[in-house]
Amino acid sequence: MEKFISLLVFCTLFFNVQNSMIEGYENLPEIDAWWGPKDEQANQDTSIRPFKVRFEDEMVEDLRYRLKNHRPFTPPLEGSNFTYGFNTNNMENWVNYWADSYNFTEREAHFNKFPHYKTNIQGLDIHFIWIKQENVPAGVQVIPMMMLHGWPGSIMEFYKAIPLLTAASEDRDYVVELIVPSLPGFGFSQGAVRKGMGGSEIAVVLRNLMHRIGHQKFYLQGGDWGSHICKLIATLFPNEVLGYHTNYAISYSPAPYAMWIMGSINEAFQSLVVEPQVADRLYPFLNFFKGSLLGNGYMHLQATKPDTIGVAMSDSPSGLLAYVLQIVSSATRSDYTNREDGGLYEKYTQDELIDDLMVYWVNNAFTTAIRIYSETYNVRNIEMGVLAIPTNVPLWLLQGKSELRYQSPKMLQFKYTNILNTTVLDTGGHFFALELPEIFSDNVLTALTAFRQYWSNKIGCVKKIEPLNPETIARPIIDFACKHFPLDSHLKKN
Amino acid sequence: MEKFISLLVFCTLFFNVQNSMIEGYENLPEIDAWWGPKDEQANQDTSIRPFKVRFEDEMVEDLRYRLKNHRPFTPPLEGSNFTYGFNTNNMENWVNYWADSYNFTEREAHFNKFPHYKTNIQGLDIHFIWIKQENVPAGVQVIPMMMLHGWPGSIMEFYKAIPLLTAASEDRDYVVELIVPSLPGFGFSQGAVRKGMGGSEIAVVLRNLMHRIGHQKFYLQGGDWGSHICKLIATLFPNEVLGYHTNYAISYSPAPYAMWIMGSINEAFQSLVVEPQVADRLYPFLNFFKGSLLGNGYMHLQATKPDTIGVAMSDSPSGLLAYVLQIVSSATRSDYTNREDGGLYEKYTQDELIDDLMVYWVNNAFTTAIRIYSETYNVRNIEMGVLAIPTNVPLWLLQGKSELRYQSPKMLQFKYTNILNTTVLDTGGHFFALELPEIFSDNVLTALTAFRQYWSNKIGCVKKIEPLNPETIARPIIDFACKHFPLDSHLKKN
Repeated sequence: MEKFISLLVFCTLFFNVQNSMIEGYENLPEIDAWWGPKDEQANQDTSIRPFKVRFEDEMVEDLRYRLKNHRPFTPPLEGSNFTYGFNTNNMENWVNYWADSYNFTEREAHFNKFPHYKTNIQGLDIHFIWIKQENVPAGVQVIPMMMLHGWPGSIMEFYKAIPLLTAASEDRDYVVELIVPSLPGFGFSQGAVRKGMGGSEIAVVLRNLMHRIGHQKFYLQGGDWGSHICKLIATLFPNEVLGYHTNYAISYSPAPYAMWIMGSINEAFQSLVVEPQVADRLYPFLNFFKGSLLGNGYMHLQATKPDTIGVAMSDSPSGLLAYVLQIVSSATRSDYTNREDGGLYEKYTQDELIDDLMVYWVNNAFTTAIRIYSETYNVRNIEMGVLAIPTNVPLWLLQGKSELRYQSPKMLQFKYTNILNTTVLDTGGHFFALELPEIFSDNVLTALTAFRQYWSNKIGCVKKIEPLNPETIARPIIDFACKHFPLDSHLKKN
Repeated sequence: MEKFISLLVFCTLFFNVQNSMIEGYENLPEIDAWWGPKDEQANQDTSIRPFKVRFEDEMVEDLRYRLKNHRPFTPPLEGSNFTYGFNTNNMENWVNYWADSYNFTEREAHFNKFPHYKTNIQGLDIHFIWIKQENVPAGVQVIPMMMLHGWPGSIMEFYKAIPLLTAASEDRDYVVELIVPSLPGFGFSQGAVRKGMGGSEIAVVLRNLMHRIGHQKFYLQGGDWGSHICKLIATLFPNEVLGYHTNYAISYSPAPYAMWIMGSINEAFQSLVVEPQVADRLYPFLNFFKGSLLGNGYMHLQATKPDTIGVAMSDSPSGLLAYVLQIVSSATRSDYTNREDGGLYEKYTQDELIDDLMVYWVNNAFTTAIRIYSETYNVRNIEMGVLAIPTNVPLWLLQGKSELRYQSPKMLQFKYTNILNTTVLDTGGHFFALELPEIFSDNVLTALTAFRQYWSNKIGCVKKIEPLNPETIARPIIDFACKHFPLDSHLKKN
């Protein structure tokens, strides 16, 4: 009991102290706030322009020079693996691969395999991949979905999933028109020139992008910061979002934390919070704080001094590589820190990971991207307010085993009052779409089908949904709409 | 009262959670632990060798190239000053100065104006400046003092103070033999090749250095990490330390925190913790946490993933400059974050600050230096134990107005049972010796005189000590030995 009270107070204070240091912010974000240079406002070009990714020769030459002429790497401490950060015994291999084996010409073509566009929203040139659907057979409906990446990811996380998501299938009476923007400040989209562009403000820009393209109602998909932005769109514009699929659903409302703490008292209370099969994703409670303290140093720095760290990351490709790929390593599987190579060859190709680095490097976008941390924490006052507002947008949860954080549907229901389904997996980490594109795409399409059934039935209950792949995908364990809890075999592997 | 309980529990938990995530560590540090490569142990050279700092042409050429060919700096957000980190509007000036105006030949000579040495201690080549005293008149005693820098400082912080501290004076019956080492891993001293070298282990190495030089008993001076190491030497070897002067005295024992919290209840309690004239250095209580959260992101990262951030800082001199000088800015005066130039031209010359950067750059020592954060937090189990052990080494406190943290003598007395005197100033920040070398040196020498009086009197009471400089230096406010509290005019300016 003593422990419980301690935990309760710790958590309460943890968030109160966090809140107390946020600058005040009184109003909801303006729908037409101008984030570009003031003098450009009169001449805004609202057209949608095709865009091609270019790896200029000069840039490639300079990048290669920097990679080949890196200064000597400090040797790691004996047996430290990735526990002190990126193990420099691996650096030569990565740096040489990037300079000599990464085929810039071919990868540029790879970047351009999908059609890119830019359009100016609220003063910022916003970049997006836009997969339109043509020659659609009669009886097949085209439905729009926006899919959002996070940090240190980019649009490149979705390159394997995009063709799967946009393919036609005889099993479906719809095809997806897919819009994949770069978040403002990330890669090919411009960042704000003045302070205050946090998650809520980005949500407005991207919702306005959907209107610009011509969609007043649409579906959403997101992970990491993408999920945060989607959540804010779903909260600020609930009547425009037809359904929201996420592989990273976290609610910052007080209720989930209170439940979490309650469950730490004993197993009886725990079972009110989380299904026993996945209780190890929430408990022991202190593991979360340990993991946060050990893994979130970069977040602390980015939330407070992004412009400082940005100078080095814009200047040194080796430094950028170590900084970003160490986070990719630990976010993919937390125990990869115990491997000398950080497990980085396990789930991705080197080309795939360097593609992501190229987005930041080519656009010199590291600083403008990580400002999302400081801007969102700065204006958390409002965001906490917004985040606590429930949204009844239909939600589908995809929960990978190695995701950075877990919240149970019971914890999430205070924020999301309309959770249609939860797919709990015994595989998959934080970069789900890149790691398991087939499972990811199958699950998103299943969710879209369910959202459509939901709206056509309007009875609040989804038709029975079978497991997509019995080997890796669990049965739905929570179905709030149907109040149906088939739990018997939701985890097949450990 | 509710607030008090909240604060109490928050703080208790804050430190308990911190502790709970530290790896176990059972024994005190070994006096002869070997930190170098194992195969070198048989051939250790224990001689003391003269050493010269060298700026090799090739290194200078490469550094200049990197500085001149930095990638474009991301413009700061409008009106952000230093609040988002180093304001890049200032970067060109600094980078150009370093490349074109910093005179490498002259500064190399400046580095070598004092005699440098190296000697191998426990497998590591340890570098130190060593000011011996020759032709000392009869009746004048030579007394040894070791002075320790911190991070992101270096031996260069002390270059203006060294001549003042080692000068002879008719007013004193002693001259100081000064030893100024580079901490292991910092600049010219080697870092460990294996895990586990935290503050306690560094304390052993530097105490062994004093023995190597021939001093079984000696005085200490330190700020920042230097004060941490001095404190550990004073705790582990109390009978060898004749006196300890510090401009940064922080105790991590539970007692000071309990007092601090107690004082947050109301002003009556506050007066039991801290003199009213300096109460604003401790209260409001939450200001400390706000300041820590906003300013200590770098610390969080370095304490957890030093090798990650080290890759960029070794490769990009612009990045290193922004990272280090932003910390210098805010540690000098916290409100310098509200200036576009970070107040960096206010207290130091550009040459002085770049000298410090050169120590890290020339030796490619960023990573090995910042490992002190992770190693010390990793072995905090033991260090917390050691730190809570009281030491009766005579202590003299110099407390600058703008120091990063403040603890009152009443809070510190649990750790330091023999505080001879406290000098409270209305000026001075974290890099005190560099900012105010005359006041610093005067105060250290006054302390040394007092330590000598203490040992010769052996009555536990120091002779009355007058203010050194009535304009800037306060009268002693606490004198535990004499139980004398002359408080009337201890702060002359605000």
